[in-house]
Amino acid sequence: MNIPASLERLVQELARLPGIGQKTAQRLAFSILRYDQGRAEALADAVLEVKRRIRFCEECFGFAEEALCPICGDSRRDPRLICVVEQPGDIYVIERSGVFRGRYHVLMGTISPLDGIGPDQLKVRELAARLEREPAQELIIATNPSIQGEATALHLSRTLAGKAGRITRLARGMPVGAHLEFTDDVTLSQAFSGRQDFLSG
Amino acid sequence: MNIPASLERLVQELARLPGIGQKTAQRLAFSILRYDQGRAEALADAVLEVKRRIRFCEECFGFAEEALCPICGDSRRDPRLICVVEQPGDIYVIERSGVFRGRYHVLMGTISPLDGIGPDQLKVRELAARLEREPAQELIIATNPSIQGEATALHLSRTLAGKAGRITRLARGMPVGAHLEFTDDVTLSQAFSGRQDFLSG
Repeated sequence: MNIPASLERLVQELARLPGIGQKTAQRLAFSILRYDQGRAEALADAVLEVKRRIRFCEECFGFAEEALCPICGDSRRDPRLICVVEQPGDIYVIERSGVFRGRYHVLMGTISPLDGIGPDQLKVRELAARLEREPAQELIIATNPSIQGEATALHLSRTLAGKAGRITRLARGMPVGAHLEFTDDVTLSQAFSGRQDFLSG
Repeated sequence: MNIPASLERLVQELARLPGIGQKTAQRLAFSILRYDQGRAEALADAVLEVKRRIRFCEECFGFAEEALCPICGDSRRDPRLICVVEQPGDIYVIERSGVFRGRYHVLMGTISPLDGIGPDQLKVRELAARLEREPAQELIIATNPSIQGEATALHLSRTLAGKAGRITRLARGMPVGAHLEFTDDVTLSQAFSGRQDFLSG
């Protein structure tokens, strides 16, 4: 295509990002072209700074700029509640909802024997040590409801049994806005088995 | 939100891009965090380079790194066919399709009296001068089928009448894959008035 080289290069770099196809990458590149110099520099600088500054929290393995991430460093967050997630990014999904006021622990993946990933490749030992150091009232396992996520949750619930007051996992059931007609059998079966009483006012 | 500052800054910079919301920006930022140093630098560098190198072609006002864009500099492109588009990016939409082998002229906008944009704010005079210098066989007006685009096309067809062999515009009608049921009245009316004979083999 008759596209100037530096523009084509930007399109290709943007198209490497997940979920960004060629057309979207072009649209983004045209938009960056319309940026003034300051904004273009701010974007480029933000990309480099994030690589320079971000490391993993020594306590929970979430994203941090210091030894501890902002959540582990926040004394108002309840250290007796620990929510276990697969990836650092999962923390922000839960934070966005504002439903959880405890701390996190990132596993850095899920158990996946086919990929050669067992508990030792994850931050499971670190979680056990953390529970030894500071006993938790509740360990909430928030791995994804996928085969690997469920296997990981099961493994944790067994190996960590007795090391926290309760070990729970997020409820399974029908998401808000779902239709019975389009709900898969597994979700429907979980919605039945986990059915809840109406609270009587 | 308890997100490290440099990560939050990258999310905000990405969320400024068109069509990128907060959630997508977060997902992109996490992906950039997983880049190795070289890839992060390549992305940042591509953003800066595009600002440094890209300017407008002196002939057609498309994107260029030299005085002329790759298309105006390509002797195999027919200079007697000129396709008029609103924005530089429109060129690549048409190039992607591979249907056009002539040259382009970018207006840099559309006539929009409410925004104070008349023909003098667009590259209309430059187009007239170009046609004086090098007569065109056909001028294909490819402005968008919006109110402004149509007004601009009408203006061009009047003021440039006689300066090109033919002045045409892209066909209006039903797009491939459309359904009669969901086609709007204006499109349907244009599809009727522009109806075409079946070619007899």
